[in-house]
Amino acid sequence: MKKHILEVCFSPIMFPLYEKPDAVVVVVDILRATSSIITAFQNGVERLIPVRTIDEAKNYKDKGFLIAAERDGKVLDFADFGNSPDNFTPEKVKGHTIVYSTTNGTQAIQQAGHCAQVVIGGFLNISALEKHLINMDRDVIILCAAWKDRFSLEDSVFAGFLADRLLESGKFETICDSAKAARDLWIMARPDLLNYIDKVAQRTRLRELGLDNAIEYCHSIDITDVIPVLENGSLRKI
Amino acid sequence: MKKHILEVCFSPIMFPLYEKPDAVVVVVDILRATSSIITAFQNGVERLIPVRTIDEAKNYKDKGFLIAAERDGKVLDFADFGNSPDNFTPEKVKGHTIVYSTTNGTQAIQQAGHCAQVVIGGFLNISALEKHLINMDRDVIILCAAWKDRFSLEDSVFAGFLADRLLESGKFETICDSAKAARDLWIMARPDLLNYIDKVAQRTRLRELGLDNAIEYCHSIDITDVIPVLENGSLRKI
Repeated sequence: MKKHILEVCFSPIMFPLYEKPDAVVVVVDILRATSSIITAFQNGVERLIPVRTIDEAKNYKDKGFLIAAERDGKVLDFADFGNSPDNFTPEKVKGHTIVYSTTNGTQAIQQAGHCAQVVIGGFLNISALEKHLINMDRDVIILCAAWKDRFSLEDSVFAGFLADRLLESGKFETICDSAKAARDLWIMARPDLLNYIDKVAQRTRLRELGLDNAIEYCHSIDITDVIPVLENGSLRKI
Repeated sequence: MKKHILEVCFSPIMFPLYEKPDAVVVVVDILRATSSIITAFQNGVERLIPVRTIDEAKNYKDKGFLIAAERDGKVLDFADFGNSPDNFTPEKVKGHTIVYSTTNGTQAIQQAGHCAQVVIGGFLNISALEKHLINMDRDVIILCAAWKDRFSLEDSVFAGFLADRLLESGKFETICDSAKAARDLWIMARPDLLNYIDKVAQRTRLRELGLDNAIEYCHSIDITDVIPVLENGSLRKI
């Protein structure tokens, strides 16, 4: 059987070089957007509407929607939630539609919207994701949300973890240097993931804001088998 | 003493995010542009004029200049040299001015032209380069020429090698995730560099063209202390 092609894109700014209409795109923003999105669906959110700009989020607020919105790690004043996964408790989210706008993650989700499918990935759902991607029987692009288009180590380490799983399955192959580099970064990180991640720039940013309590949680493997998927501009559970 | 900031930029498409007018930029295209440029100066070339387009190179040809030009690893029909370092022998280059245009390397050189200084780096001149960068007493950006704006493993491994040297000197610091990732890739590659590099996409491309004979040479450490530098749009020896 012909193997599908696996690629890793380290930054949204490079995505036009990788984009293929027939591929499944996995969007990754470990600290913290995609970890929070997975958690929200695990806790029963009905629908998440990712929006790019603060003005779009404000318009939804005026229409009565719940809003999760941050920029540079800080909750926006008009928002009901920030971007920390522990905001999205069952009490607050179950059955609701939430409009969601973050510095990096939601931008990447919208950018991939022209591809065959966009799913949301993280350590939290990796095994379910792996199974889903194998079942989809298509090429896969792992898109790191990065930090304002700059390379992000925690997203890339996760991309390497998922790449490793998919390549080991025997269903995928790659000639992509970034997939190989990501896999090697995962191999370096694997023996002590949290210690490795301690050096990432985003950890420093979150610590300065007193928001680094979510780091251990965001690197927990397989807490759920929920996979958020983009459908007509909104995220829903598969 | 305040340390200078070191950053690694994995692709020319990301360079606007890193660009600082006061920084020294090290352009890296291990396979093969910067390795060839270093070799040309080692062998006595007087001046190299990097040009972006094939048309520019043709115009120079009409004016009687020697031309080195390739696209996708293939020598262009009107060119006097390709992009293999063994083209630039003392007999052919000594005392000459050569116009130079390649798929990735020359583009990156021109893109960095607004910064304080642009120097050409590779395994071939790393120790001289390290000394020069410490003496320059400025922030440093290592710019990987990459492959058509995609991440390139061999350029990134070299960036990590140079980053490791500069950070170990105690004169530089970084909070840049790509510098940390590059350094870790170098640490993985270091015990058996050529074996590690065997997996890079560019090796496959060169092998298919019968051009992979230069790979071992391009990964040789410290064959020269020549440092090419950009001055008024041309490369000269420092």
